[in-house]
Amino acid sequence: MEEQTPRLCPDTIKSLEIICVGTELLMGHTVNTNAAYLAEQLACTGVPSYYQSVVGDNPERLLEVIRMSFSRSGGAILTGGLGPTADDITVETIARMLDTGVVIHPESQERIERHFQAHHIPMTPSNLKQARVPVGARILPNDRGTAPGGILEVCGKVLIWLPGPPTEMREMFEKSVKNYLKSRAPLHIESTYIRLFGIGESAAEDRIKDLMIHQTNPTIAPYCSTGECMFRISYSSTPGHTDSSAREPVDHLIKAVSDRLGDYIYEIGKRTLPEVVSDLLRERKKTISFAESCTAGLLTSMIGEYPGASDILSGSVIAYSNTSKTDLLGIPSQLIATRGAVSEEVAMEMAIRCRQKFSSDLAVSITGIAGPDKGTAGGPVGLVYLGFSQQDKAFVRCLRLSGDRSRIRYITALNALDLIRKELIHEG
Amino acid sequence: MEEQTPRLCPDTIKSLEIICVGTELLMGHTVNTNAAYLAEQLACTGVPSYYQSVVGDNPERLLEVIRMSFSRSGGAILTGGLGPTADDITVETIARMLDTGVVIHPESQERIERHFQAHHIPMTPSNLKQARVPVGARILPNDRGTAPGGILEVCGKVLIWLPGPPTEMREMFEKSVKNYLKSRAPLHIESTYIRLFGIGESAAEDRIKDLMIHQTNPTIAPYCSTGECMFRISYSSTPGHTDSSAREPVDHLIKAVSDRLGDYIYEIGKRTLPEVVSDLLRERKKTISFAESCTAGLLTSMIGEYPGASDILSGSVIAYSNTSKTDLLGIPSQLIATRGAVSEEVAMEMAIRCRQKFSSDLAVSITGIAGPDKGTAGGPVGLVYLGFSQQDKAFVRCLRLSGDRSRIRYITALNALDLIRKELIHEG
Repeated sequence: MEEQTPRLCPDTIKSLEIICVGTELLMGHTVNTNAAYLAEQLACTGVPSYYQSVVGDNPERLLEVIRMSFSRSGGAILTGGLGPTADDITVETIARMLDTGVVIHPESQERIERHFQAHHIPMTPSNLKQARVPVGARILPNDRGTAPGGILEVCGKVLIWLPGPPTEMREMFEKSVKNYLKSRAPLHIESTYIRLFGIGESAAEDRIKDLMIHQTNPTIAPYCSTGECMFRISYSSTPGHTDSSAREPVDHLIKAVSDRLGDYIYEIGKRTLPEVVSDLLRERKKTISFAESCTAGLLTSMIGEYPGASDILSGSVIAYSNTSKTDLLGIPSQLIATRGAVSEEVAMEMAIRCRQKFSSDLAVSITGIAGPDKGTAGGPVGLVYLGFSQQDKAFVRCLRLSGDRSRIRYITALNALDLIRKELIHEG
Repeated sequence: MEEQTPRLCPDTIKSLEIICVGTELLMGHTVNTNAAYLAEQLACTGVPSYYQSVVGDNPERLLEVIRMSFSRSGGAILTGGLGPTADDITVETIARMLDTGVVIHPESQERIERHFQAHHIPMTPSNLKQARVPVGARILPNDRGTAPGGILEVCGKVLIWLPGPPTEMREMFEKSVKNYLKSRAPLHIESTYIRLFGIGESAAEDRIKDLMIHQTNPTIAPYCSTGECMFRISYSSTPGHTDSSAREPVDHLIKAVSDRLGDYIYEIGKRTLPEVVSDLLRERKKTISFAESCTAGLLTSMIGEYPGASDILSGSVIAYSNTSKTDLLGIPSQLIATRGAVSEEVAMEMAIRCRQKFSSDLAVSITGIAGPDKGTAGGPVGLVYLGFSQQDKAFVRCLRLSGDRSRIRYITALNALDLIRKELIHEG
């Protein structure tokens, strides 16, 4: 079946809707990350998408939204509803919509049997349901689970269905759907992300407003998340008409934005701030240690998230209590008593002594008041000191942050990372 | 306007759709947490919801999905599109749909002016756009931002609109929408959550399958997320017919589930595992310290996330490198050389010495291989040792986890928390 020619092949897909199937989404027990992922992927591949829908495990409602996608868009990409139970209705509903039958797909059957053998789980007859596919579909193998996905083109419309679990869905999309969509997209879109820290969205926009207004291709669009903002530069062209000169206006625009925003830019590409800092440390063959108080390990954990952290991360002391600042880092209790645990002096000592304790090239300290209460340290919620120490240099920076405990801790960690980034860059 | 009687008041709302407006959702730059929040809230208030939709900042498409919600549901609850720019189309589109005009709402205007004064931001004429509301609407004040929300009932249908930023939306929903919906819900639903750790979803379901099959009211529904699973017990009754005896079948079912799943249950209620452990430590007046290696601060950070962590958290050593295990915790380098950094013996020493260093009542250590490479420690990816130490007792537990680096670190931290929980409970 995998080799069978699709019944009708639309030259380009004018647009696709995203339809996510699952009562757990309707009940709010699962946040719909699949929709966000697919939306971003559709934008990248150049297939426009104007509608997203969620329906539960209900065949009539699913049929209705699929029908709607045929009437107002070029079809739909669906996730979910491919499980082994009676609740899982996607395959049957697609077959109904396209007026075709459902058959067992032998390769998927073998794959499912092997999966159960490999995991030493007894297989029940209901598991074989997942090998049932609509007649005429191109079947997409599932390398991370049991349910295959599929593509069916009919009457100039296309339906693509993928499993609901995000890891299975993403791998299947990457391997079997992305290039298919690119080859049928009405536009070829190339996007570059410029990532900023330390400047608000509106202030950043103000600096490049003229570029944003006058650009039609490439375009610049701003996006912001907690503590960070980002500009996406997208260049669209007609497929088959992309030549090497297409990069020129993009590069020109990136340069213009870089000139205006300089040091605020930590990445032109896909890396996060912790990744950029980790890579800088690795390139410069430096090790780092942290002395964290109010962030309680959040900063260290952000570096520890990335593979190969052992090359650069010596370790940390989370000196949450005052006695631990004294016992573990050797901060004089007298200093804490006179200046306060949240003070420039204590932050400085924490950084210097942390670096000594771990024999690392760099050290960063954090002491602050994350709230909601002021605690015993005195000073307002959101007051944070960052200390930095290296062989020939040590200094302290004071932050005054707003928001709840969770935000203050997170923004503090980002500030610490950005401070390390700037020190490493300016050192050369 | 706020006091004006709604034009037509449907006795009950049979169902509501969720419609989220915003090009950032269609582009996949924002994950739609608003839909998940509102879906859960609708389920809790007893208003059924069978459809969710997302459209961009496009009046025709928004009008179309609102129309659809009137034809197939009892109306819709909308978020987004209430900003000050020309892109923000929700209020105008609602007015068009309901064939009514748009007027300035004086209280909202004052509120917006005060907001800008308080934040020392110059106000532009476009900001006043946010004070424009559909004629006849009940206006919902925004205590966290500038755009008011609203409720309009017409022809037996209802439209509710809320701002897009999640903090503004949630506060407005809690203060002004929740009770309104409860009073018009066709059902009164009470839900209780039973939260489990250490058992998979299917194994947990197997133990209570008979209860799940035979229950119609209350019902039990399973939900799972990374490393955890949860059962929701929901009891529905007709509004006005809820008496105190309604709790009986719910309590009976909770007891039956508890008998079957015992120790796996860490919470009957809303608290997360780190919250439960924090509360247990606080109740028992115990302090804790951590020695983390592969989790690199993640465990400590999960405890640090909750207010009042300073009562229970002494601190941590993140002993990432072998030398830091020796220098900071005093683990003999000989022991690391002979047994390996990832070994039962090193985990035991880390826990015991951590407790001594911090003078805490309890200590937990973690040493393991989070991957993707085996590193220098030897042993397979996913091999983790957890050490536990208190005054009269110390032991080590070995975990063999699967998945990627991020999952292994997270599941390790959850296992450590659950180990602490069980030790505190069994100690009494």
